[in-house]
Amino acid sequence: MSEDYRKMWSDLGIDLTAHDALLGVLGKGYQDIFLSQKNRPAGMSYFDFVMSEVHGLRIRELLNEKEAGRKIIGAYCVFVPEEIVKAADATLVGLCAGADFATDEVEKLLPRNTCALIKSAFGFKIGKVCPYIEATDMVVGENTCDGKKKSYEILNDLLPNLYIMDLPQMKTAEGKALLKAEYIRFKKAVEELTGVTIDAARLKKGIELVNKKRAAMHRLAGLRKADPAPISGLDALLANQVFFYDDVPRFTDSVNRICDELELRIKKDEGVFPKGAPRILISGCPMAVPNWKLPWIIETSGAVIVGEESCVGERGTRNLTDDSGTTVDSMIDAIVDRYFKVDCAIFTPNRDRLDHIIEMAKTYKADGVIHYGLQFCQPYITESMGVEKELQAKGIPVMRIDTDYSMEDVGQLKTRVEAFVEMIKR
Amino acid sequence: MSEDYRKMWSDLGIDLTAHDALLGVLGKGYQDIFLSQKNRPAGMSYFDFVMSEVHGLRIRELLNEKEAGRKIIGAYCVFVPEEIVKAADATLVGLCAGADFATDEVEKLLPRNTCALIKSAFGFKIGKVCPYIEATDMVVGENTCDGKKKSYEILNDLLPNLYIMDLPQMKTAEGKALLKAEYIRFKKAVEELTGVTIDAARLKKGIELVNKKRAAMHRLAGLRKADPAPISGLDALLANQVFFYDDVPRFTDSVNRICDELELRIKKDEGVFPKGAPRILISGCPMAVPNWKLPWIIETSGAVIVGEESCVGERGTRNLTDDSGTTVDSMIDAIVDRYFKVDCAIFTPNRDRLDHIIEMAKTYKADGVIHYGLQFCQPYITESMGVEKELQAKGIPVMRIDTDYSMEDVGQLKTRVEAFVEMIKR
Repeated sequence: MSEDYRKMWSDLGIDLTAHDALLGVLGKGYQDIFLSQKNRPAGMSYFDFVMSEVHGLRIRELLNEKEAGRKIIGAYCVFVPEEIVKAADATLVGLCAGADFATDEVEKLLPRNTCALIKSAFGFKIGKVCPYIEATDMVVGENTCDGKKKSYEILNDLLPNLYIMDLPQMKTAEGKALLKAEYIRFKKAVEELTGVTIDAARLKKGIELVNKKRAAMHRLAGLRKADPAPISGLDALLANQVFFYDDVPRFTDSVNRICDELELRIKKDEGVFPKGAPRILISGCPMAVPNWKLPWIIETSGAVIVGEESCVGERGTRNLTDDSGTTVDSMIDAIVDRYFKVDCAIFTPNRDRLDHIIEMAKTYKADGVIHYGLQFCQPYITESMGVEKELQAKGIPVMRIDTDYSMEDVGQLKTRVEAFVEMIKR
Repeated sequence: MSEDYRKMWSDLGIDLTAHDALLGVLGKGYQDIFLSQKNRPAGMSYFDFVMSEVHGLRIRELLNEKEAGRKIIGAYCVFVPEEIVKAADATLVGLCAGADFATDEVEKLLPRNTCALIKSAFGFKIGKVCPYIEATDMVVGENTCDGKKKSYEILNDLLPNLYIMDLPQMKTAEGKALLKAEYIRFKKAVEELTGVTIDAARLKKGIELVNKKRAAMHRLAGLRKADPAPISGLDALLANQVFFYDDVPRFTDSVNRICDELELRIKKDEGVFPKGAPRILISGCPMAVPNWKLPWIIETSGAVIVGEESCVGERGTRNLTDDSGTTVDSMIDAIVDRYFKVDCAIFTPNRDRLDHIIEMAKTYKADGVIHYGLQFCQPYITESMGVEKELQAKGIPVMRIDTDYSMEDVGQLKTRVEAFVEMIKR
């Protein structure tokens, strides 16, 4: 990385030594896991570049935004409506992290029995290795699971600009009213932060921008129905991860360009894995950068991942927001309608998610489903028991994996995944 | 137990062999832990009798209620308003359980990383050893923590009469509106179940009955300020546990009779422990019958427990409901006001609880606080980090204990508690 970046990081308060170590591991991991893949679409070079500059050029862009008077808002969850952020010419960046960092320090603040995703978010802040969080003008924490809800009380001491968004637990009329009230409150907070009044024209533009981004992801997802799969699950996951960081129109264009290429591949019956390779749907907890452990294990075991039923995947991207409204209120209603459909395991009951898993397994012609649970994630791990039961009843092979960010269980997971892949071979 | 009871249990579907084993352990535990105490108030003989008949006479009484056309409602949480249940001449019984049972079977349905309280509730149902749950006409599950919220989805397959009550996560206007809507819905469900229309006169009577019960507990709590303590923490905990099971007016009278006796003791400077014995406040997760492990360890280590900041304790009993309303709606508002004050760790932020712990430590002249966390209870264990920090800053000695229902850690806990008691000696 250039000296220019080192000064930028230093000015943001980054611990350069720790950060060098992190980037070293990240670069090595990316090389081993992504660049070693065969038959990658040429369009993935964009994402390779994005990842090589993930703490460099992208941070410079965010700081340029700030210098131009615009604001950066960080979020830990797909329930934070990017439509509202974009309507105020602000930028939303995902802050979840997929690697253990400063764990000893984190466990002085959080119980050890906290999931790796939450610990990692704390570790990146405490360890001063995340330029994204340091570049934010506002960070949104949301009351999803107990782990996040209660840890934000502690994060509040570390982040002076933390804003808490409440969320419902049931999809009732009262639950929806609560979500609407919270989105209206969030809109006001964004307006205050940015000095921009979000009128109907701005909100419409925000909805359209984000819809286009999600539509590009739908297009990408749809192309994965093909056999042979035209893109690896790892590369598709990467697109889903960069979804949370990148400039919205540029990301949208890049995904669409890859889709153009994949369409040509499909016509030529070309793929990244042999035709007939076992096809796997991943379902469960989100996978934030650089949490590539399980997909890497799966795709080096002879199977291809054809879909992600995940926040970093179709759970986060699947629905568009109705853009036909003409008033701010009607568009807020449309946004509430869209996010209220997200079938996160924090909701009870959550039948929609089961139906969606089954639908995805059919749509993407999956031979089996691997349920991915982050250890100590009560909502998803509890649901995984029912997912397993339901899929077994439907004759869909399923395996539950509960893990964390450590590499200690790689050997054991590899053995289990290989056995599963062998079992589902057609 | 008499043959009459065996037939009653059998008719309820109880597994008699397993149940005999459970009662054997329970009886032995009660003998060793409660009856071995010295200087107990004579009035505790009522609770000794209640406990000796906990699955006998009390169940017979409940079945008599049912035969007379009245209904039994079970609950797992202090958020279920007994005022509304009593207004419909129905009976509310607590269903939480404090012992491991059928754990192997439970862990086929629930993740291993689920707290002992939830696992125990499942175990008592699956193992068919809880006549209370079998006697209920309706069971109320509530969306408090993730563990309970998600496990009720599974319990729903085991309990045909499960009713889910939603709860807010923040003490906002929307949160309060949600609680009110849920209490109105619950009132309707109770009316449908019982065939009783809850009018203002009935609701007033319900409020008065429950207020008297709670007022008796306030009186008992107040008497524990004395040094020497006139009653052991174990006996006071027992009263707090029986609070959830017993006939309301009879329980109220029994507690008041003990209070009369304790007042005489205090006048004579009599107590259960020597004057000046180290005084401990317990704070944290609820302790359901027969979860007496930690209090027993504390009180056999030379200290006396002077208060419980717990659902089974002052968190559950502290506030009365304003009974001055004259309409159903105004009384529902008063009930909502009362329960909305409960400072359960499911709320965020939850500053009130910290203040209450400090207030209780002062009021009951505690020399130290032991925070009791059930392993895998994310809300209370996460809060315990902040409780420790705050109490330390205030110069109040504090120790955090995270445990479960097993007896494996008794030796280790005893060593830690003895060291803590030694440290806080005046």
